[in-house]
Amino acid sequence: MIRISLDVMGGDFGPDVVIPGAAIALDRHPDVQFLLYGAKAQIDPLLDRFPKLKAKSTVHDCEVAIGMDEKPSQALRRGRYVSSMWRAIEAVKTADADVAVSAGNTGALMAMAKFCLRTMANIERPAIAAIWPTAKGESVVLDVGASIGADSQQLIDFAIMGSAMARALFEVNRPTVGLLNVGVEEVKGQEEVREAGRLLREAQLETLDYTGFVEGDDLGKGTVDVVVTEGYSGNIALKTAEGTARQIASYLRAAMSRTWLSRLGYILAKGAFDMLREKLDPRKVNGGVFLGLNGVVIKSHGGTDAEGFAAAIDVGYDMVRNGLNQKIENDLKIYHAKYPPRAGQGVA
Amino acid sequence: MIRISLDVMGGDFGPDVVIPGAAIALDRHPDVQFLLYGAKAQIDPLLDRFPKLKAKSTVHDCEVAIGMDEKPSQALRRGRYVSSMWRAIEAVKTADADVAVSAGNTGALMAMAKFCLRTMANIERPAIAAIWPTAKGESVVLDVGASIGADSQQLIDFAIMGSAMARALFEVNRPTVGLLNVGVEEVKGQEEVREAGRLLREAQLETLDYTGFVEGDDLGKGTVDVVVTEGYSGNIALKTAEGTARQIASYLRAAMSRTWLSRLGYILAKGAFDMLREKLDPRKVNGGVFLGLNGVVIKSHGGTDAEGFAAAIDVGYDMVRNGLNQKIENDLKIYHAKYPPRAGQGVA
Repeated sequence: MIRISLDVMGGDFGPDVVIPGAAIALDRHPDVQFLLYGAKAQIDPLLDRFPKLKAKSTVHDCEVAIGMDEKPSQALRRGRYVSSMWRAIEAVKTADADVAVSAGNTGALMAMAKFCLRTMANIERPAIAAIWPTAKGESVVLDVGASIGADSQQLIDFAIMGSAMARALFEVNRPTVGLLNVGVEEVKGQEEVREAGRLLREAQLETLDYTGFVEGDDLGKGTVDVVVTEGYSGNIALKTAEGTARQIASYLRAAMSRTWLSRLGYILAKGAFDMLREKLDPRKVNGGVFLGLNGVVIKSHGGTDAEGFAAAIDVGYDMVRNGLNQKIENDLKIYHAKYPPRAGQGVA
Repeated sequence: MIRISLDVMGGDFGPDVVIPGAAIALDRHPDVQFLLYGAKAQIDPLLDRFPKLKAKSTVHDCEVAIGMDEKPSQALRRGRYVSSMWRAIEAVKTADADVAVSAGNTGALMAMAKFCLRTMANIERPAIAAIWPTAKGESVVLDVGASIGADSQQLIDFAIMGSAMARALFEVNRPTVGLLNVGVEEVKGQEEVREAGRLLREAQLETLDYTGFVEGDDLGKGTVDVVVTEGYSGNIALKTAEGTARQIASYLRAAMSRTWLSRLGYILAKGAFDMLREKLDPRKVNGGVFLGLNGVVIKSHGGTDAEGFAAAIDVGYDMVRNGLNQKIENDLKIYHAKYPPRAGQGVA
């Protein structure tokens, strides 16, 4: 049995998306139990529509909901101990739940998760990992926005955590890992990226296969299983790719509706377009994973629908089922047996 | 008359692409004269096939050609004064040419351009600006890889240069300018980005309309005319977008050829697909502009064909015709009348 706590009030649509989303996920994973945190008065009538879900859920009434635009510091002040977001995370801390899922605002969620769960031993900073659709399948990309900048040790932590996640997600024992870099300058890239590359190469870890630098276009190619970068460029890359996909989809729509012949062609090839739409469906890869905390938290897109929220629950389910945090702890141990952690790590 | 010097040996295909490319560009701009730098023995027979181009060209024999993988320092050592790349740039310095175009390797080209032309007064670092296709048309994005990292003053220089380029390219008097940033953290973005934003807002320049921060997905939307960022994230964004476009194009191809019905649909809608292909054609937006030097240099993709190289020549033509560098000098003057340049600028 896997116990999943949900911040029912998170996201643009709150319970209207979270509850039906949970029902979809339950159909796929009958061994799940849900802890629902939010306004009981809103949740109960919705739950009545999903009797199977109701039977597998406990409702925990919370008076405070964190707004999508609320600043992290404000959310922490106002919502600590009492908000649906906090309490969903806290359920992981108290071991009542195995994983928490929220579509609430990223900054607040990360602030609360850090404050409540704390970073793992020997991890200085958590990261947000995205599952990136590629020409070959999927890759893990991190950090996509937990923090700005990273030194070589933090990049190595990201590599270790990302490859643990890749092993939890994909059928691969020793994921390939690349450091995101640029190929223009003679002395390529930032000092910390080169230093991280040197150390990863030297470490010869059995848990990951460091292959060297990759560039922006390797993300879509799926050149490696795990792409490591600091959160500023990772976030820009992620949003640029999402934006480009939307841009091309809108070009395609405009082109296909332009003449009666193209409209007819569209109808005949509708199966192909449906396949393409499915392939590009952002809901399919919904679910950013917070890595490096004493507990797993999944961030769903705020604007997603029930299907998308269910996908985020799926990610959380997979992470727990495949022992993500045990893998990370184990891999860190292997790394630090070779390279003792520096002073002060993991206390932030 | 506009005089364009070409590094005929640059790029994956050298004269085989550069000469036919020049012929295409000449058809569009009959007022162009070309200075061709490269191996005369290779150029002359090709020129015989394009009599109109031959009549408008002078050939300058060069014994050295810079390799596509040559390191900038090595290229500079081996190719200074004698290579086709150097001499094409030098023609701009000596005012024999108005602009130089090369499909040679970016690092070497930038190193030679900096060494030969030097940075403009009050500009610390040159930038490479890309023309980015958007849902609304085109934007200017810089820096896409001239250097890594930028302080607030350099970001402001990029904003001023980029908006001068936007005015030279598009019909707009006061281009909108955004600083690329991430929207996740409470205190958003890097210190230097926020500082640059504060100064640009305060300056209230008549030559550009600073609108605030933009994120990665604003690039494809065309939210602003000019997107400013440092070269590391700019290069990653550019390559990520290129990679995503290729990835989706290959999904589309696979989907359309899957069943006889979708193949038939493809045939009927071929006009629409051709339109889409044209819209996504990377050759159309070929031509990175080196900004901030005492002379204009255009970098073409190394792997492009004659049509793509002609597009890079077009960009150079437009930059000269619309007085890019005069605009930059003028705009810098306006800015520095309000904010005196700091010591040491422009001497690099």
